[in-house]
Amino acid sequence: MCSTRTARRSIGRPRPVAGIALRELLLDAALTLFGEQGIAGTTLAEIASRAGVTPAMVHYYFKNRNRLLDAIARERLLPILTSVWSPVLESTEVVPMLRGLVQRIFKATEVNAWLPSLWLREIASEGGQLRTRLFKLAFFDYVRHLISTVTAAQRRGEINPELEPRLVLISVIGNTLLPLATVGMWQQLPAVLQGVTREQIARHAEALLVSAFSKNLGSARGR
Amino acid sequence: MCSTRTARRSIGRPRPVAGIALRELLLDAALTLFGEQGIAGTTLAEIASRAGVTPAMVHYYFKNRNRLLDAIARERLLPILTSVWSPVLESTEVVPMLRGLVQRIFKATEVNAWLPSLWLREIASEGGQLRTRLFKLAFFDYVRHLISTVTAAQRRGEINPELEPRLVLISVIGNTLLPLATVGMWQQLPAVLQGVTREQIARHAEALLVSAFSKNLGSARGR
Repeated sequence: MCSTRTARRSIGRPRPVAGIALRELLLDAALTLFGEQGIAGTTLAEIASRAGVTPAMVHYYFKNRNRLLDAIARERLLPILTSVWSPVLESTEVVPMLRGLVQRIFKATEVNAWLPSLWLREIASEGGQLRTRLFKLAFFDYVRHLISTVTAAQRRGEINPELEPRLVLISVIGNTLLPLATVGMWQQLPAVLQGVTREQIARHAEALLVSAFSKNLGSARGR
Repeated sequence: MCSTRTARRSIGRPRPVAGIALRELLLDAALTLFGEQGIAGTTLAEIASRAGVTPAMVHYYFKNRNRLLDAIARERLLPILTSVWSPVLESTEVVPMLRGLVQRIFKATEVNAWLPSLWLREIASEGGQLRTRLFKLAFFDYVRHLISTVTAAQRRGEINPELEPRLVLISVIGNTLLPLATVGMWQQLPAVLQGVTREQIARHAEALLVSAFSKNLGSARGR
């Protein structure tokens, strides 16, 4: 999408309307590059070049790398997090909650192809440059609701007591963003492992989580 | 362990016996630092310093960074992979196979504390410096056996048909190494999420995978 825009605007300030579009275009370019090669491996000049403008435009809109990362967290990650997580509050049942989460995560990664690898490198990894910025955004109410819903169901004896409610968040991520982030890696593997599709990942994630968190599964399972 | 060794040996070649110990000590130091700060963020001088020797010793034993990484893959990752994965071949039943895998992964990370974060940054992440080296090591026979065991059980109608056998490997990793690699991150989160222990992660992983891959769970689950 970004690469089709080749018009350059190298002199003076951009007009307001073009300015808004250009700012979004620069965020798109930054996210695409960050997903491909990491934040540390990407220069502001590369972002400008990918968006088809001069480096001065990046400085004009974002001043510096820190401000650019702040903008990405606030203007791009927060809306995605909110759209994925906020419907959780509408439900008090674990299985529909998990199904919905998985489906919305897949939808979000369809629109934002950079999301899984950005998550892996810049949020999950130690020293990731978006981790602290993300933790300042207020989405923990949703996670708390998920945890308390699982805890309540567990107290009613509906969910395997060996599952840990505080780990449900990471189980969801580990079965969605992790396989999506590493699916490119499969191509380097022996034939039997190749060719896993997004649809298979989505179906597998949903089936796995639904099986694990369905009612009355805990009782029959001894060690 | 490494930091307790402070003896320096800065002149001449090390004696053979001390040499073997020192080589292992350097591998230990390298793995600890790589786990803490990543391969790209670690200099050979830091490795030497952590092991309490001069940088010349690192060059003496490993020549350069590439040879050091080759040695790590062959002498440290391969034995761990083999000990975790080879018992898989002894079983043709999915649940004991998954239980055993989870338990051996936790045991391996107990002894090798650097393993989860090294996996996340250098194997799972795009551009990770151990990924290609790892894929050259022959452990895919074990993964193939796991896949064919799950496939066979699924054909017998014992496992939810919506699960994808080629994704079982990543489900195991996503519920073991991923939470272990990110457990430090929990401390930055609101109180309700803090304090998850290794034991809880292990129990959760085993319960989740066993529930999802147990017999006769597929039939009752429509979408």
